[in-house]
Amino acid sequence: MISSKITGTGTFIPSLKKENTDFLNEKFLDSDGVALTSENDVIIEKFKAITGIQERRYARAEYTSSDLAFFAAQKAIEDAQINKEEIDYIIFAHNFGDVKRGAIQGDMLPSLATRVKCKLKIENPNCVAYDILFGCPGWIQGVIQAQAFIKAGIAKKCLVIGAETLSRVIDKYDRDSMIYSDGAGACIVEETTETDSGILSHATQTFAKEEAYYLHYGSSFNKKEDKNVRYIKMFGRKIYEFAITNVPAAMKMALDKSGVEISDVKKIFIHQANEKMDEAIVKRFFRLYKMSVPEGVMPMSIHKLGNSSVATVPTLLDLVLKGKIENQSVNKGDVIILASVGAGMNINAIVYKY
Amino acid sequence: MISSKITGTGTFIPSLKKENTDFLNEKFLDSDGVALTSENDVIIEKFKAITGIQERRYARAEYTSSDLAFFAAQKAIEDAQINKEEIDYIIFAHNFGDVKRGAIQGDMLPSLATRVKCKLKIENPNCVAYDILFGCPGWIQGVIQAQAFIKAGIAKKCLVIGAETLSRVIDKYDRDSMIYSDGAGACIVEETTETDSGILSHATQTFAKEEAYYLHYGSSFNKKEDKNVRYIKMFGRKIYEFAITNVPAAMKMALDKSGVEISDVKKIFIHQANEKMDEAIVKRFFRLYKMSVPEGVMPMSIHKLGNSSVATVPTLLDLVLKGKIENQSVNKGDVIILASVGAGMNINAIVYKY
Repeated sequence: MISSKITGTGTFIPSLKKENTDFLNEKFLDSDGVALTSENDVIIEKFKAITGIQERRYARAEYTSSDLAFFAAQKAIEDAQINKEEIDYIIFAHNFGDVKRGAIQGDMLPSLATRVKCKLKIENPNCVAYDILFGCPGWIQGVIQAQAFIKAGIAKKCLVIGAETLSRVIDKYDRDSMIYSDGAGACIVEETTETDSGILSHATQTFAKEEAYYLHYGSSFNKKEDKNVRYIKMFGRKIYEFAITNVPAAMKMALDKSGVEISDVKKIFIHQANEKMDEAIVKRFFRLYKMSVPEGVMPMSIHKLGNSSVATVPTLLDLVLKGKIENQSVNKGDVIILASVGAGMNINAIVYKY
Repeated sequence: MISSKITGTGTFIPSLKKENTDFLNEKFLDSDGVALTSENDVIIEKFKAITGIQERRYARAEYTSSDLAFFAAQKAIEDAQINKEEIDYIIFAHNFGDVKRGAIQGDMLPSLATRVKCKLKIENPNCVAYDILFGCPGWIQGVIQAQAFIKAGIAKKCLVIGAETLSRVIDKYDRDSMIYSDGAGACIVEETTETDSGILSHATQTFAKEEAYYLHYGSSFNKKEDKNVRYIKMFGRKIYEFAITNVPAAMKMALDKSGVEISDVKKIFIHQANEKMDEAIVKRFFRLYKMSVPEGVMPMSIHKLGNSSVATVPTLLDLVLKGKIENQSVNKGDVIILASVGAGMNINAIVYKY
């Protein structure tokens, strides 16, 4: 039985630190364009209490998503100790293309995967490079697609990247703008014939009824701004309710397919969207098995890195594997779950054994 | 041996006809912003002689790519006589997102596949909807990905769509703007256990050295326009040379994998980019087998429909299958090749038996 395993990871954490206090002078409005009644320090304190975010990272002006991706990809290739010319697929998950600072158009012609291949100076024309748009769960879905290509016999080694510069698509009048950050994470997925490690199972769902537009591109809350210029917008409350209901069920679907006992799950790497939401998801997931949440099961990076969309899960995984998050590690034989939720609304989960 | 077959096709041809004479009053410039020396009627005549394009279609103002896609998808589902709730994957190939007429931002949040799923009113959350960006070959690549998912055992029925509104991303000062059009094509790919029909083989390549930017997003040729606003741009001569060299080789790679004799190839459905280029590709392809081009082997739609990127191949296939192109048909047992080339630079080909 052919399956796949992750043989290397890499991440790029942008250098510009944006702290919560940097938002003290913003003019936050509600969706009707009316100024929020609370003072900014109160808004920020409440924001931090819910999301866990203390600071986030923004990319330097000269970099776009494909640059961040290239930096992360280089590290993943080095970590996997493979020859870059052996890569069969480059799968790049993003949602906005390359957005230059100050520009409002995203650029995805050519695809960002092609740009990374170009920057990596890969000569082999049989290395196929494409982009996938799948909301925040795009990187996990890229890993699932890599696994499918490996199982179908059309790939042996895939580079899967998630990179985004959300700082370039935010409406500064919207307090949700404090959530978003920039980042990139990558991994190498390789064919394996080991039956007891690698990807054990996975599940994916797309909820496209009214949920389809919970995350969308919309005009600024400031009605004086050009309404044709659009930004990332979300119905936070609806997403929260949606996520805590549906993500635990999808994670359970994946775990039950794997045949692994819940008690053997060592870590859950969940999309860093919102700390309280993530905690509620994991609590409900364990409750489906009538268990309470084991201490330390959910490593977090949101406090310092914010929500960088497709980049959060590969970044978090890389940080833990490299021992860069205190009291967190993954050891040979550990079963972990990777899970995400985002625009689409898409949900996915992978059960993986190291 | 599990493989896949196309069980239904559908297309949407936008209603607004744009004729060559409609460009007579444009002010065409070269890339330095200097007016072309020839008169427009001479430019247009030469354009028509090379590309074959007499007219092209534009979408009505109220429609975006995901609308065109929805119309084509409905027809493909009906043609395949399947229950829409049985679709496991919706794979949507495009390159610019939904671009409203007059807007310069593409919108792909949520993904266009999600929008189509929403419009189709599919309830099943296990129907996974994602977008692929792969230049003009995106729709063929979507079919290859559907085949991979089917072989990997994670799908049985996939809806694969290519839709684009290139009329919304063109620089009117660039004579290449006459090439582009709008359109949508879709198909249903289903699992089959028949060994003698369906997808026999496929090949894909990405050339990402200097070729990576042969097609790109660039500023208007009119230097007075906002240089931050970007449009589809191409180095036509370089693409022509690239395509006639590399596309025949990739088609041969696919055909040789299939084990089918060149003499058994009944039709070639090639991306409708440029008639002279397509003729040169097919001529060189047959020359690789020391053959001359059989009469009628290459159905064409470019004369009336222009180049609608990802939509040309599924549209052309649908038109021929439905008997809508004079003297062209595909019959049970016929081997056909689907082939494309475009931004990336990507090339792909599928050898298929009806």
